[in-house]
Amino acid sequence: AGNKSIVVSGSSKSTMKVSGRVHLDGWGFDTDEDPAINDFNGGSDPANRLGFRRIRFGVSGKIKDNMIYKIEMEFAGGNDSEFRDVFLGWIDLPFFQEVLLGNQKRPYGLDHLNSSRYNVFIERPFVIEAFNEDARRLGLQAYGVSDDMAWNWRYGVFNGRNIQDDGNYTGDHLQLQLAGRMANTIWYDETSNGRGYAHWAISGSHADVSTADDGSDGQSESRFRTRPEGRTSSDRWLDTGLIPGADYYNLLGFESVINLGALQIVGEYQSNWVERDGFENVHLNGGYIYASYFLTGEHMPWDRESGTIDRVIPFENFWLVDTAGGGRSAGWGAWQVAARYSQADFNDADIFGGRGESITIGLNWHWNTNARMQFNYISGKIKDRDADNGDNTQTAINATPDVQSGDYDIYGARFMVDF
Amino acid sequence: AGNKSIVVSGSSKSTMKVSGRVHLDGWGFDTDEDPAINDFNGGSDPANRLGFRRIRFGVSGKIKDNMIYKIEMEFAGGNDSEFRDVFLGWIDLPFFQEVLLGNQKRPYGLDHLNSSRYNVFIERPFVIEAFNEDARRLGLQAYGVSDDMAWNWRYGVFNGRNIQDDGNYTGDHLQLQLAGRMANTIWYDETSNGRGYAHWAISGSHADVSTADDGSDGQSESRFRTRPEGRTSSDRWLDTGLIPGADYYNLLGFESVINLGALQIVGEYQSNWVERDGFENVHLNGGYIYASYFLTGEHMPWDRESGTIDRVIPFENFWLVDTAGGGRSAGWGAWQVAARYSQADFNDADIFGGRGESITIGLNWHWNTNARMQFNYISGKIKDRDADNGDNTQTAINATPDVQSGDYDIYGARFMVDF
Amino acid sequence: AGNKSIVVSGSSKSTMKVSGRVHLDGWGFDTDEDPAINDFNGGSDPANRLGFRRIRFGVSGKIKDNMIYKIEMEFAGGNDSEFRDVFLGWIDLPFFQEVLLGNQKRPYGLDHLNSSRYNVFIERPFVIEAFNEDARRLGLQAYGVSDDMAWNWRYGVFNGRNIQDDGNYTGDHLQLQLAGRMANTIWYDETSNGRGYAHWAISGSHADVSTADDGSDGQSESRFRTRPEGRTSSDRWLDTGLIPGADYYNLLGFESVINLGALQIVGEYQSNWVERDGFENVHLNGGYIYASYFLTGEHMPWDRESGTIDRVIPFENFWLVDTAGGGRSAGWGAWQVAARYSQADFNDADIFGGRGESITIGLNWHWNTNARMQFNYISGKIKDRDADNGDNTQTAINATPDVQSGDYDIYGARFMVDF
Repeated sequence: AGNKSIVVSGSSKSTMKVSGRVHLDGWGFDTDEDPAINDFNGGSDPANRLGFRRIRFGVSGKIKDNMIYKIEMEFAGGNDSEFRDVFLGWIDLPFFQEVLLGNQKRPYGLDHLNSSRYNVFIERPFVIEAFNEDARRLGLQAYGVSDDMAWNWRYGVFNGRNIQDDGNYTGDHLQLQLAGRMANTIWYDETSNGRGYAHWAISGSHADVSTADDGSDGQSESRFRTRPEGRTSSDRWLDTGLIPGADYYNLLGFESVINLGALQIVGEYQSNWVERDGFENVHLNGGYIYASYFLTGEHMPWDRESGTIDRVIPFENFWLVDTAGGGRSAGWGAWQVAARYSQADFNDADIFGGRGESITIGLNWHWNTNARMQFNYISGKIKDRDADNGDNTQTAINATPDVQSGDYDIYGARFMVDF
Repeated sequence: AGNKSIVVSGSSKSTMKVSGRVHLDGWGFDTDEDPAINDFNGGSDPANRLGFRRIRFGVSGKIKDNMIYKIEMEFAGGNDSEFRDVFLGWIDLPFFQEVLLGNQKRPYGLDHLNSSRYNVFIERPFVIEAFNEDARRLGLQAYGVSDDMAWNWRYGVFNGRNIQDDGNYTGDHLQLQLAGRMANTIWYDETSNGRGYAHWAISGSHADVSTADDGSDGQSESRFRTRPEGRTSSDRWLDTGLIPGADYYNLLGFESVINLGALQIVGEYQSNWVERDGFENVHLNGGYIYASYFLTGEHMPWDRESGTIDRVIPFENFWLVDTAGGGRSAGWGAWQVAARYSQADFNDADIFGGRGESITIGLNWHWNTNARMQFNYISGKIKDRDADNGDNTQTAINATPDVQSGDYDIYGARFMVDF
Repeated sequence: AGNKSIVVSGSSKSTMKVSGRVHLDGWGFDTDEDPAINDFNGGSDPANRLGFRRIRFGVSGKIKDNMIYKIEMEFAGGNDSEFRDVFLGWIDLPFFQEVLLGNQKRPYGLDHLNSSRYNVFIERPFVIEAFNEDARRLGLQAYGVSDDMAWNWRYGVFNGRNIQDDGNYTGDHLQLQLAGRMANTIWYDETSNGRGYAHWAISGSHADVSTADDGSDGQSESRFRTRPEGRTSSDRWLDTGLIPGADYYNLLGFESVINLGALQIVGEYQSNWVERDGFENVHLNGGYIYASYFLTGEHMPWDRESGTIDRVIPFENFWLVDTAGGGRSAGWGAWQVAARYSQADFNDADIFGGRGESITIGLNWHWNTNARMQFNYISGKIKDRDADNGDNTQTAINATPDVQSGDYDIYGARFMVDF
């Protein structure tokens, strides 16, 4: 530190780690001014986009004897700050192991549990975003892992509302959810330090939702919606709107990962049964499968404690490599190609949220452990969506739905660092 | 720190401490749909509430030779960030001792000067919140303490507007206030390290307010309002509205603390005389008294430099205790019970802000020095309030006030950590 | 650090420095209720102002091997946070030296490149603020310096939109700009450690702007506007409005600095040619010159790497000085006086943004390297401005412009610390 002053934490009983990330995106949309896509996009041709996807800053640490805390802010919204992980918790507990109370990710499948720092594609698949919009909810969740690291699990109770922009849920109907995920790393090749492994998991949720939006009950959390796996404006291209008469929903997800050195294959499928009062029940579902491959031979590391992918370590960094003799020479980083097929069906009974299908081709250029570029080309179509669903009035379901279909191509690029 | 990088401050001439807190609340309201309470609550039944009360993050430190600084942010509002303590200052000054310039707490009595980290009850009493809404103002304030620590004082000049959401006061009428507090720790038992002590203080303010809300003069700071000692929406259940013709107000507060080991008794009373042009002067007042007791024998520490309560140190932490032999065993933390009676009378002449009366029963479970849970049950009534005051139009006082009265019960719980 | 916990960065591969600043301002306006000034000010008499101009907090550091990052937030807006410098970058590059990608200052002349921590006057001149509003844009910029430190340069490509409150630019027309600055420290007196030096630089930009504000093309970045070199509300007293038919603009700036010990003379002149479709091209221009002098004999340091002014080091700090014998005695800090003449002409063809002329007298009291007070008296006039321009409708240019002229006096004071 020399002549610099060392920063200390506010209390001698607590430790602190400061971290953050910057994600800078460019997006281009090619929709041939398809009127259906324009309608899905809030009535206008989707505009190209240049800007910050994430500007994160956070602090976390331990409090004596066995407590932990975290505050993480998202500043990419400019005037509109939002919080992300904000919790207090306990570690080293008998039976429960680790328990966190606060805003944290719900255990709905793999792809949202993977950090955006490590995700293979720039944006997450339809079904992952639609069934678990923005992922984090206020809840109490336990995290555990077996001694041999083969099994890990998380389960808890959550409030259904995303409170990242308000800070509070208000409503006499609590809209609670019970959710959990049980994961198994069935194969992990210790001798290669994890270049080979296989994983599967099952996740589920029983979510009570407010049946109506009247007065103090709180707005119903019965809407499922998502962007086209690229970053558009706030209008979602797949959107069920608030589902009239929704009473509760049950979610079930299956996921699997197989990793063979530089090659990884990942797939998930999720089903969502919405039980309704006075309306026909609906079943929404979707899934995806992708393969990724390191041209430069690295592999996607696996975190057996959480059952999620981990930070990529390039064999050589971009631009500068320390050689044995102490000199420096140029390196090329790690190069990874990937392809994903994703599908979602949000149409059933009187609900016309749309059927989406999308192929994404990706190229990731990892400069070092903390910086990379990502390039995505997405070709998709959305079928039979009633764009009037998006107005979020629970009662305004058309007798004769006005469904539309459209195609699109999207080009995306991202620069990212984390620290 | 090992393989972690040590964080340094931006300048070799400055030091830095990083601190924060997370307060997570649940609130339940039981009002039997009393129409009066609904009117006080903006027209609708108060909704239950779950969310973050405080997500604080701040930095503070010294600048050579004798200056200090602090920036503290509040992120619990989600999209709406707010600042709290933001100041620069001088220490070790002749005569003035310490002087701070910036956003800081006004010296209006004890309970708002106590940190929310240490307050015995979840929310502060009627009169404390109403006469000193959000406590902090832009000002220049000196802080002093006598050599024997028996006396401490703070006094300064403030602008009356709460600028935590705008950042600036704009108005040709400056609405300045002179305010101060003189405190005396008349007894402090050094031999028990402060398990016994007694304190009294007097505080006062002379506050000039803008007489009208016309053009560039700035909105009058002549409104006194507060929630029902529980966290409701932004509507205040006691609310004078902008007091027509208010020219200036004088505030006088008395406070006293007696601590005998595990038992503490605290009381405050404040009077507010509003001088008006063309209207009858009004006198608003209120007070509270509470007793708290540690079932596990700890005591509420006292900070003689500031004349405020300090951080509780449990005899044993919750869950984990280091035993003499180096082993670990479960501990139960510190348990504290408390009861508060609070009263406020904001009715006088043509002003019908309401008369409030409230009893709060509290239980605090201190897990360690930096974490605790709080539980409050509140039973209160509000009498003779004219809910039309809340519209904040200075001229629209009804000829015949439409006063209402109502009862309520409130249940609150808080988890908190600070670091 | 003793019994305090040392704060560490989030990754062992990255370093972190935490810094910030607090600027607290008071502003008084004396306009004799001039109806022209009121019109320029959005229709009402400019109100006096007290509050925070800047509450900055940021982190920056290095990522192995040769990358850097920075996130800097501005919290003075209260509810409305904004980001400032947010970038990732590479250092030690062959040929390009340093390259930053993200939100960073455009290289339009000297005064905006100077940090607000070091600026001699409280607010920047007309032309600097008008042609480079808020200075920072999303871009890719290279920074270089010659081995002998005599030459430094920066050049890059930027998007024209200020995204500090939205986080993103959306629009199919990218509104790109190519901009650069070439600077030469033609004299630097090494023997006196830089008490004598001279500098000149030339800067320029070619900026494509959206020709229309229709649908997804994005709002045209063809508006040039500024406050009266004092901090008013969001209404700008000089304002061209969106210039109808603007296709692109070319900016050229000249700047020069001469420093002779305690005396410094600085001047800049900038010209802006707006090329238009279907309208007459317009030429906007302005400049300023100022002299500053340290009564106490210090000098304005010069940063030869960036071609900007640097941090002032008082001979003795205010209040406390360490004397040779180890004792302490009062010091008076550094005292600096300054005068500036500034002028701008934003009238040409059918554009009546106004002609401004302003004299500022300044006094800076530097308490130490990290804290100072600034006092400014500004006397100015604005001539022949059509206040209807401010409504920012590109087509609503009056056939017969309704121009007005007015005078004003402004008093400003600032307290600042940085850390």
